Amino acid sequence: MSKIGFIGIGLMGQPMSARLLAADYDLMIWNRSVEKCLPLAELGAAIADSPEVIAQHCDVICLCLTDTIAVEAVFSQLQPHLKSGQVILDFSSIDPLATQKLANHCSTIGVDWIDCPVSGGVQGAASGTLAMMAGGRLEAIDKLKPLLANLSSRLTYMGASGSGQYTKICNQMLVSCQALVIAEVVAFAESAGVNSQLLAEAFSGGFADSKPLQILAPEMAERRFTPEKWHVKTLLKDLDMAVDHSRIVRSSTPMSGLAAQLMRLHAVAGYSDKDPSTLVNLYLEPHE
Amino acid sequence: MSKIGFIGIGLMGQPMSARLLAADYDLMIWNRSVEKCLPLAELGAAIADSPEVIAQHCDVICLCLTDTIAVEAVFSQLQPHLKSGQVILDFSSIDPLATQKLANHCSTIGVDWIDCPVSGGVQGAASGTLAMMAGGRLEAIDKLKPLLANLSSRLTYMGASGSGQYTKICNQMLVSCQALVIAEVVAFAESAGVNSQLLAEAFSGGFADSKPLQILAPEMAERRFTPEKWHVKTLLKDLDMAVDHSRIVRSSTPMSGLAAQLMRLHAVAGYSDKDPSTLVNLYLEPHE
Amino acid sequence: MSKIGFIGIGLMGQPMSARLLAADYDLMIWNRSVEKCLPLAELGAAIADSPEVIAQHCDVICLCLTDTIAVEAVFSQLQPHLKSGQVILDFSSIDPLATQKLANHCSTIGVDWIDCPVSGGVQGAASGTLAMMAGGRLEAIDKLKPLLANLSSRLTYMGASGSGQYTKICNQMLVSCQALVIAEVVAFAESAGVNSQLLAEAFSGGFADSKPLQILAPEMAERRFTPEKWHVKTLLKDLDMAVDHSRIVRSSTPMSGLAAQLMRLHAVAGYSDKDPSTLVNLYLEPHE
Amino acid sequence: MSKIGFIGIGLMGQPMSARLLAADYDLMIWNRSVEKCLPLAELGAAIADSPEVIAQHCDVICLCLTDTIAVEAVFSQLQPHLKSGQVILDFSSIDPLATQKLANHCSTIGVDWIDCPVSGGVQGAASGTLAMMAGGRLEAIDKLKPLLANLSSRLTYMGASGSGQYTKICNQMLVSCQALVIAEVVAFAESAGVNSQLLAEAFSGGFADSKPLQILAPEMAERRFTPEKWHVKTLLKDLDMAVDHSRIVRSSTPMSGLAAQLMRLHAVAGYSDKDPSTLVNLYLEPHE
Ligand SMILES: NC(=O)C1=CN([C@@H]2O[C@H](COP(=O)(O)OP(=O)(O)OC[C@H]3O[C@@H](n4cnc5c(N)ncnc54)[C@H](OP(=O)(O)O)[C@@H]3O)[C@@H](O)[C@H]2O)C=CC1
Ligand SMILES: NC(=O)C1=CN([C@@H]2O[C@H](COP(=O)(O)OP(=O)(O)OC[C@H]3O[C@@H](n4cnc5c(N)ncnc54)[C@H](OP(=O)(O)O)[C@@H]3O)[C@@H](O)[C@H]2O)C=CC1
Ligand SMILES: NC(=O)C1=CN([C@@H]2O[C@H](COP(=O)(O)OP(=O)(O)OC[C@H]3O[C@@H](n4cnc5c(N)ncnc54)[C@H](OP(=O)(O)O)[C@@H]3O)[C@@H](O)[C@H]2O)C=CC1
Repeated sequence: MSKIGFIGIGLMGQPMSARLLAADYDLMIWNRSVEKCLPLAELGAAIADSPEVIAQHCDVICLCLTDTIAVEAVFSQLQPHLKSGQVILDFSSIDPLATQKLANHCSTIGVDWIDCPVSGGVQGAASGTLAMMAGGRLEAIDKLKPLLANLSSRLTYMGASGSGQYTKICNQMLVSCQALVIAEVVAFAESAGVNSQLLAEAFSGGFADSKPLQILAPEMAERRFTPEKWHVKTLLKDLDMAVDHSRIVRSSTPMSGLAAQLMRLHAVAGYSDKDPSTLVNLYLEPHE
Repeated sequence: MSKIGFIGIGLMGQPMSARLLAADYDLMIWNRSVEKCLPLAELGAAIADSPEVIAQHCDVICLCLTDTIAVEAVFSQLQPHLKSGQVILDFSSIDPLATQKLANHCSTIGVDWIDCPVSGGVQGAASGTLAMMAGGRLEAIDKLKPLLANLSSRLTYMGASGSGQYTKICNQMLVSCQALVIAEVVAFAESAGVNSQLLAEAFSGGFADSKPLQILAPEMAERRFTPEKWHVKTLLKDLDMAVDHSRIVRSSTPMSGLAAQLMRLHAVAGYSDKDPSTLVNLYLEPHE
Repeated sequence: MSKIGFIGIGLMGQPMSARLLAADYDLMIWNRSVEKCLPLAELGAAIADSPEVIAQHCDVICLCLTDTIAVEAVFSQLQPHLKSGQVILDFSSIDPLATQKLANHCSTIGVDWIDCPVSGGVQGAASGTLAMMAGGRLEAIDKLKPLLANLSSRLTYMGASGSGQYTKICNQMLVSCQALVIAEVVAFAESAGVNSQLLAEAFSGGFADSKPLQILAPEMAERRFTPEKWHVKTLLKDLDMAVDHSRIVRSSTPMSGLAAQLMRLHAVAGYSDKDPSTLVNLYLEPHE
Repeated sequence: MSKIGFIGIGLMGQPMSARLLAADYDLMIWNRSVEKCLPLAELGAAIADSPEVIAQHCDVICLCLTDTIAVEAVFSQLQPHLKSGQVILDFSSIDPLATQKLANHCSTIGVDWIDCPVSGGVQGAASGTLAMMAGGRLEAIDKLKPLLANLSSRLTYMGASGSGQYTKICNQMLVSCQALVIAEVVAFAESAGVNSQLLAEAFSGGFADSKPLQILAPEMAERRFTPEKWHVKTLLKDLDMAVDHSRIVRSSTPMSGLAAQLMRLHAVAGYSDKDPSTLVNLYLEPHE
């Protein structure tokens, strides 16, 4: 079995690495802030001194980093030490165009770059039930399937490099627009005198149902805004990215575009670091 | 067991009535076009000559009619013959304010009007798995539960008269906005070079998933627009009604409002009687 | 010279009547609240006891009333006493479809109904510089030109009955959308560190200029919200009417539709009776 | 009188330079494609071999270039040769943040960068009636006033570097949103049976009036789409820039955001290089 590197031991990277260790993979890890590596070392992971060491020793190099800038920064440290035949497996959600550039660059030196963003959150990472949307060379992805089976309950091959990242953007458009529609539905129901706490139950299993509905509608109805499990600013960043890329590929996305503007209105009004359930306040609170 | 009337033997009323007959209810039916009653008569239903006859003989009078106008028309025929203690159980999706007027009127003569719009389509009607959202006097609804159990797998009591209809509007806002977001996501994915046929599979079970996604995304991706299972004009009517009622209850619904305008743009361009899967053409077809 | 009736001595009707008196017209007036007639009586107007008296004595009957309901109420009092050859000249801004019904009704008894809504405000009424958009029989309107010349500096014949009212709706769409765009431009400029008090001057006479810009941008920039010269609720009513009628004529109006929703968001947040200049707060005030 | 350089002899730069020559300024010009300089040479302009020569000889260096990239490219050629006391006067419409960087850079070497984007088109350039919105050091702008008086009938000082560019973005938001509202108003009027050719006249001088209305409404009404005087893609670029910058300064701009999406829908449908008057087709043409 090949040697696996994992760079980015954050909220997602930590449980994903732990699952690989539990599956007896030979794992070498690196994180900018080294202390996050220690619990994994106790589970058997080797701690690398630098990305360079990972590049020198590992066949598959997993990344799970904040954003495009972080991925590019780490890649610039890996790059001088990469060897033909290696695979970089990027779980981060980043810019599809940056991904395509990185993948092109890698292909010139015989390295595969696989974009493999995930959906399912920390919980999905811990339980190995992430959904993954992969882009890159099919043969390379096929070889990774046994590894990925430890992390994911659904892996969809989307096509050439960047396709995984584009698909992740689609995922976020659906989720973020849904959050905004739920907010206006909850507010409308209340204004009409309907007990909005019953909506999630009433729609359960039907055409109007979705996971965001089951989570957000009751929180909105009860004004239960803490603990924050995700942030308005994250949805806003996702929607802004959707608008940017729809512009680049010359496709009109009016619903996502309006959602971005409403999300911004809410963020600017002081809700940037709050839970998206606060969106109900956009419609029900006086803004004087 | 009490005598049940059923008025409106259409696409929905037919299978609902058939299930009541199968459950051995004593059923008397009426339909404007009498021929639709014949198959049910063979299953044991009595055919009434007029709504008047139903009002004279039945304890519970079910309605499943096209729209507000149809319900008001039938009610004006029932009304002179209603007696205290009877229940009108309206499965139609109609105007909540009209419902409240009808319910107020009925309450002055000791009759309960229960608004009980349904979700789940003809298939749900046939299998007895409709979702129902009921408004009206709780005690009256409680008494109807054994009857409704034959038609529905989920009955939610939403509150006072009209609440069921308002909830149905919420249901339609969620579904119709979702249809428009799916259209722009599919178009975006294709413009980005992603195989849009894989989106439904990739998102299955995740936060971006929903029944409309599983149905519409593949149809849109494959440009499979027939057979038409529902119509653009129906979603448009629902969205227009949502906008009207959000206005009346003084709640802002910008996502639904934009969805209504985009749906109208599509309808006016010739898609009014087409399947909502054609919405992908709003983004991918030249309109010259 | 013929005898003129004027019904509706409100903010607009008062100065319009005064101008007709100043031009030596033989004027008979009626107002629901009689006290508003007194100043005009001093200028020479005859006060009628009822609309009936106006119908009996006047060749041309001017209306300047609040809304559709008021016009229909007054018409039902006039109608039994109307005679072939009379002209009803309606300056009110009302529903185009109601207008068409009234006009059809009148035409069956040989009476011309001219819809002639105006633009220019109380100031334009006082100075005789109203813009008028007329619908109805061209010959009838031509005959009214000498009369209208006392009130208006611009009379445009728009076509058949109702055309004037539709044109007034177009006028209001342009003005109300403009108000919302100005609000977001002022907020954007301030957020970018630009002195928004200079925008009106900077754009004066250019492509971005308009009367609403010259009035609203400085008020918004200086947060000078009183005295209220018009109301958020009026623009909202106009936008709602535009959305309704665009629906009826099957035309999509997404900009006006969004403007209606944003205007409603602002109205619901407590600004319904405030000046539209407060719209800047939609973007610059926290709504917590 | 000081020596003036002018770089960028395009549609705007040509007539602006001609006016400076007519006012007897000592003018040295440079253009990437030298042939455009020849007519000005006949009027007395000196042609420089490179931007370098302009930097060496001129006190005030005017730029009137396509976009941010062009301005940055030319600046990199000027920069090594700039001397303290010189002024760069940038008439181009470019990114405000790029402007601020350029201005900061210049200030370290004692050079003033004045952003001075213009509005009024080729016609305004030829007649010296451009509106100018200037950002930068006030004293530097004050010294330029005699020069600018030859080109402009209105110069507004907006504040620090970049303010001029931000103001130009505001200008474009107002104009581009207005174009879209006019399109939906014209389409609505026609759908309602109103002769849309009369709208411009009917609204002339009133609250709904604007230069775009007077130009676009008749063109739209008559489907007079050529000759193209401006392009859909230009308005789209402006709106996209507005959306980008409103995001950067954290201000919500929903009307401009929707306008961008609708403009993109129209552009993608084949109208990118067409006149904005074609926007009426977004609402009136079937897109099957
Ligand atoms: N959290 C979630 O629910 C989900 C997250 N994702 C995606 O997964 C990725 C990781 O998210 P998550 O684990 O939540 O984020 P965290 O913030 O918890 O972790 C981010 C990781 O990136 C590292 N990092 C950031 N910048 C740099 C840099 N310049 N150089 C080196 N390392 C850097 C951090 O190091 P350090 O510890 O030193 O800060 C940390 O290890 C993101 O792309 C996210 O969008 C996808 C689905 C769900
Ligand atoms: N179809 C679906 O998937 C769903 C439908 N609904 C709702 O259920 C209700 C019924 O829908 P559906 O069964 O599909 O519709 P159909 O068109 O199949 O049936 C409508 C029924 O209404 C009757 N009707 C219409 N106008 C009048 C009138 N003026 N007087 C008397 N009877 C009249 C019709 O009689 P006739 O046969 O003589 O025309 C017919 O029986 C509607 O409110 C709909 O919104 C809810 C969920 C799903
Ligand atoms: N104000 C403005 O700036 C402009 C107004 N308009 C339009 O002009 C019309 C008049 O507006 P304005 O003068 O400002 O309004 P006012 O509210 O000042 O006047 C309304 C008039 O309508 C009368 N009225 C209302 N309801 C009834 C009824 N049921 N029966 C009899 N009379 C009734 C009122 O009588 P009473 O005195 O008894 O209440 C009053 O004379 C409106 O349609 C408005 O939209 C158009 C352009 C500009």
